[in-house]
Amino acid sequence: MKNIAYYNGKTGPIEEMMVPMNDRACYFGDGVYDATMAVNHVPPKEEMKQILQGLIDQVEGDSLFVYWQVTRGVGMRNHPYSGAATGPSLWAWVRPNGMRDVYGAYRCITMEDTRFLHCNIKTINLLPAVIANQRAVEAGCDETIFHRGDRVTECSHSNVHILKDGVLHTAPCDNLILPGIARKHILEICGEQGIPVVEAPFTVDELMAADEVFFSSSSAVTCRVREIDGKPVGMRDEATFAKIRDGYQRKIKEECGK
Amino acid sequence: MKNIAYYNGKTGPIEEMMVPMNDRACYFGDGVYDATMAVNHVPPKEEMKQILQGLIDQVEGDSLFVYWQVTRGVGMRNHPYSGAATGPSLWAWVRPNGMRDVYGAYRCITMEDTRFLHCNIKTINLLPAVIANQRAVEAGCDETIFHRGDRVTECSHSNVHILKDGVLHTAPCDNLILPGIARKHILEICGEQGIPVVEAPFTVDELMAADEVFFSSSSAVTCRVREIDGKPVGMRDEATFAKIRDGYQRKIKEECGK
Repeated sequence: MKNIAYYNGKTGPIEEMMVPMNDRACYFGDGVYDATMAVNHVPPKEEMKQILQGLIDQVEGDSLFVYWQVTRGVGMRNHPYSGAATGPSLWAWVRPNGMRDVYGAYRCITMEDTRFLHCNIKTINLLPAVIANQRAVEAGCDETIFHRGDRVTECSHSNVHILKDGVLHTAPCDNLILPGIARKHILEICGEQGIPVVEAPFTVDELMAADEVFFSSSSAVTCRVREIDGKPVGMRDEATFAKIRDGYQRKIKEECGK
Repeated sequence: MKNIAYYNGKTGPIEEMMVPMNDRACYFGDGVYDATMAVNHVPPKEEMKQILQGLIDQVEGDSLFVYWQVTRGVGMRNHPYSGAATGPSLWAWVRPNGMRDVYGAYRCITMEDTRFLHCNIKTINLLPAVIANQRAVEAGCDETIFHRGDRVTECSHSNVHILKDGVLHTAPCDNLILPGIARKHILEICGEQGIPVVEAPFTVDELMAADEVFFSSSSAVTCRVREIDGKPVGMRDEATFAKIRDGYQRKIKEECGK
């Protein structure tokens, strides 16, 4: 099977799956989601294992993108969710997707971060992220780095980190960034590798002057950045970056057997 | 017929309508919407007239809620919309809905406005509005008035206005509020009735000390507020408020013949 989707117990190819118009995803983006990679058909979480493993086993390919979301049910459009006609809806799908090459070097743009103040919650209110990522694509780039004024927050669908003098700097887990799972793994790897970590706000100037810049997400675990807004950046401490990159690859191999 | 829905040319009862899982509404809230009342089966806009009139004519009831949205098409989940597989999707539905009683007096709560900085665009990224309206319902109230720090912006799904010394004060049309159609009609009515208008930011203190407070939307055109966060407010200049309220009712009658 090329891909498979799930909605409240029904399954089928993603392109053919239909969902109720009244699901609150459709009017409000009233839901939360997560996504991960299933490498070597190993799924992510115990709680979801039964459903996700059932989907993963039906799709061919070594590296699969696994997506799931929960929305506040199906009911006539009305802002308060206490009146929703049903309980929550569970959505999921699995499709082949290569992980992004961690030996490449990527190009980014920057944009003012105009998102809401709940960026720590992984909701499907993603329109500003959509626009930002679209702008990157239009500029021939790979990601958009957000900043609120001077402060760098994160990217359109990844976290961003810098290395300076052998120290990893990354934004703190407040309401302005998503505390990404890849970010969490990176901090663990830094601990194992003896790389000091500073979880504190850093500025656009510090970003541009960093020894290394890289972004991270579940499908782009450690992606080195070579250019921002047309200016060369980073690429000056490959030794430290490589410890993190290679540590992450070992972690994937250990957990998924590949 | 009790209600009717439309999705890209297909129609059916709202509760039975299915839409593609891959519509970008479902993952990103990547769409914009509008809604209005069709009183006496008179639809709103010339451009949409053919489709909406076709729906309106099939639903019984004098006062119908008419909703439509456009999303950025159907395609495999991917942030950039330039890769969406289809052109935009058009969604619509019509169902009976009484307009909110404009002779009542309503109770509100306040909440810090944590929404994104694109509130002037009527997108379906509505999760903070959902939460805010839910909080109002949980408090036994009718609406939530947002403020950014001291500055009053708007409500969870309506604009808010105050009267002080015979002058209407309302937030200016910047990126922090939706320039509602009902708001526009109210400003026109003020012009006709000789009520001065100040379109400038006003504070929570000014809100609490106003002679009158009222909110407005297409289905709650002029709703007077008698209590905010448990404290009595307004209700001290019925003469001026009544000019606006009655002017609005005349406008509906003129346009819809009822």
